[in-house]
Amino acid sequence: MENYQTSLDAAFHALADPTRRAVISRLTRGPAPVKELAQPFNMGLPSFMKHLRVLEADGLIRSKKVGRVRTCWVNTERLTAAESWLCEQRALWQARTDRLADYVETQMSGSIEDAG
Amino acid sequence: MENYQTSLDAAFHALADPTRRAVISRLTRGPAPVKELAQPFNMGLPSFMKHLRVLEADGLIRSKKVGRVRTCWVNTERLTAAESWLCEQRALWQARTDRLADYVETQMSGSIEDAG
Repeated sequence: MENYQTSLDAAFHALADPTRRAVISRLTRGPAPVKELAQPFNMGLPSFMKHLRVLEADGLIRSKKVGRVRTCWVNTERLTAAESWLCEQRALWQARTDRLADYVETQMSGSIEDAG
Repeated sequence: MENYQTSLDAAFHALADPTRRAVISRLTRGPAPVKELAQPFNMGLPSFMKHLRVLEADGLIRSKKVGRVRTCWVNTERLTAAESWLCEQRALWQARTDRLADYVETQMSGSIEDAG
């Protein structure tokens, strides 16, 4: 449970930034070298590397250097944990909304019968 | 798009903490007064209030004070935005994984035919 909470902390922390989310979006399409990942962003390489380090420290991406090229890929496991947590929450509030709707419907059909 | 990115930043930032996630989980079951929300946590009320303020500033909860009781409820819209973003990413990497699986399958059935 401790580890589960820690991975959720890390996943949500890493995703709280538009540059890091854009990198994840790119990597869900397939692995890419750092140079290609950095290209769409209007920022210096040192700033961009900071974002990559956060993503790797938080376990959302992995990377490997071969020769002079470092290639990154996404760690889908951690993204899945975050999605599952959000999905559970939605199931809970939807169940509640459905119960409320049922209740209102019951009350209204009761009123119509009473009025008839 | 700017607003969309800002709400995702806020949603993921707020969710990067186990206490705040537990508050959200409680509120998806229905609105609750602050006193009830604070009860399960082994922390002083001022520390707990800080978490509630983050959740409210980041737009994940709303609250209203009536008399001496402040009641909180969840803002499902922002949670839905975060879930949708993660869901899109999963669709992308699943499509890629499926294509890879198709490719491997094609290659393998080819090899078997070649061998036969």
